[in-house]
Amino acid sequence: MALAPPTIGVFDSGFGGLTVLRELLPIMAGAHFVYLGDTARLPYGAKSRETIARYAVSSGAFLLAQGAELLVVACNTASALALDELKAALPIPVIGVIAPGAAAAALHPGPCSLHPSVLVLATAATVQSHAYFRACAALGLQAYEKACPLLVPLVEEGWIDHPVTAEVLRIYLSEALAEAPTVTTLVLGCTHYPLLKPLIERTLAELNHPLQIVDAAHAAAHAAAALIPPSESTAPPTCSFYATDSIEKFQRLGSAFLGQPLPEVRLIDLGG
Amino acid sequence: MALAPPTIGVFDSGFGGLTVLRELLPIMAGAHFVYLGDTARLPYGAKSRETIARYAVSSGAFLLAQGAELLVVACNTASALALDELKAALPIPVIGVIAPGAAAAALHPGPCSLHPSVLVLATAATVQSHAYFRACAALGLQAYEKACPLLVPLVEEGWIDHPVTAEVLRIYLSEALAEAPTVTTLVLGCTHYPLLKPLIERTLAELNHPLQIVDAAHAAAHAAAALIPPSESTAPPTCSFYATDSIEKFQRLGSAFLGQPLPEVRLIDLGG
Repeated sequence: MALAPPTIGVFDSGFGGLTVLRELLPIMAGAHFVYLGDTARLPYGAKSRETIARYAVSSGAFLLAQGAELLVVACNTASALALDELKAALPIPVIGVIAPGAAAAALHPGPCSLHPSVLVLATAATVQSHAYFRACAALGLQAYEKACPLLVPLVEEGWIDHPVTAEVLRIYLSEALAEAPTVTTLVLGCTHYPLLKPLIERTLAELNHPLQIVDAAHAAAHAAAALIPPSESTAPPTCSFYATDSIEKFQRLGSAFLGQPLPEVRLIDLGG
Repeated sequence: MALAPPTIGVFDSGFGGLTVLRELLPIMAGAHFVYLGDTARLPYGAKSRETIARYAVSSGAFLLAQGAELLVVACNTASALALDELKAALPIPVIGVIAPGAAAAALHPGPCSLHPSVLVLATAATVQSHAYFRACAALGLQAYEKACPLLVPLVEEGWIDHPVTAEVLRIYLSEALAEAPTVTTLVLGCTHYPLLKPLIERTLAELNHPLQIVDAAHAAAHAAAALIPPSESTAPPTCSFYATDSIEKFQRLGSAFLGQPLPEVRLIDLGG
């Protein structure tokens, strides 16, 4: 008898986590995904740890009520600041993006453990939490974290392959490589950044400093898939999408993040 | 007998409204200002009209409880979407930034009323509301509204006078002037934009298309001052600052917006 198809909850403060879902779809045939973007309360980055934990737990509880047997926290801020609270509050496995991102970086050890071997690009909030620094340190890696506050707005403006974005990347990467010239691996520590991977690779080549690029979204998807028993199904996975407010931007930009057209997004109210 | 010094509430979703307070301070000797940045719930721009009105009314009620006799809504989004609700909910005069900005633009009539004479630069949310378009139309002016989503992040990155910001402005202004070549006046329709005024003037000169620049923050401050009886006091105004979350960024960037060092910011909880 075939196992029932697993239901997997994927949660982000917005639509950035669709880059994690994009990585999950090709490796989890037969699964049903329920995606929640807590758009009414984004961005989580500027908010306090207590507030973020409260928002994340209410989002997780919604996905549990939709039948989720596993929760993927496809949001760096919530992974950095609310993973313990989510694990304590929910009776299902919870996986974030930061530990898998650090573990993937550890597959590419640097030349020397006394100097940083890992460069993490992330939002200001994720850098301030130093969650990647700690996750890397737990694996014996030194990380240098670089806040890149303009990259999310540039991606959301649609300037994925644009001279301005190239110049901003050149500035951020030059500053980071001046501070941490020993790095050999770069972690994309924000769910928006996979869309910039080609431009980041090109900029690093122009700076004559190629790095091994680790996509935390990709790493998290594979870590999540490893927690689910392999399915006998070969049916394409199915998805439901929910947002807490303002689904227009979600619809408009989401398909670029998901890599395919985005079907109906349903509006729900989690209060607050 | 001297009148008691007036207490004036100034409200924004963040610290951008400090550019309005900056314009109020030199023209209102003797006044006491209470500034509230609703940082726990920013940005308002991505949220629905109902949610923004609820947030704005609770912020206005807090300032009323602090003794405000006049409320200055130093926030384009709240001015666009919640001014009527604020006026209905509060027993004091309420003034926003949009009507004064449009009125200031009307002081510089264009050559022809059949084509746009006013270019409004604003956030995507303010443009989507078309509040400036309507406020200008009520004064017989045609406005062309241009969304400039990268300018707030660039200002918050501190890149006020930076080649990347100059290039972004050149792109936005070129696009707007191609769509609306007849404009003669430019309205800074976001409280962050006064910090970019010198760079905007330089970019317009390079594009060989100088425009009369109207600062909605400046116009709103003068409209607010006109509602308060002239004070006999020559004492410098005093200020109290409140925020609902995350005062670190407020403290760090606020002094650039206020044009002077920012004293203590007190954290308050408005719920939500």
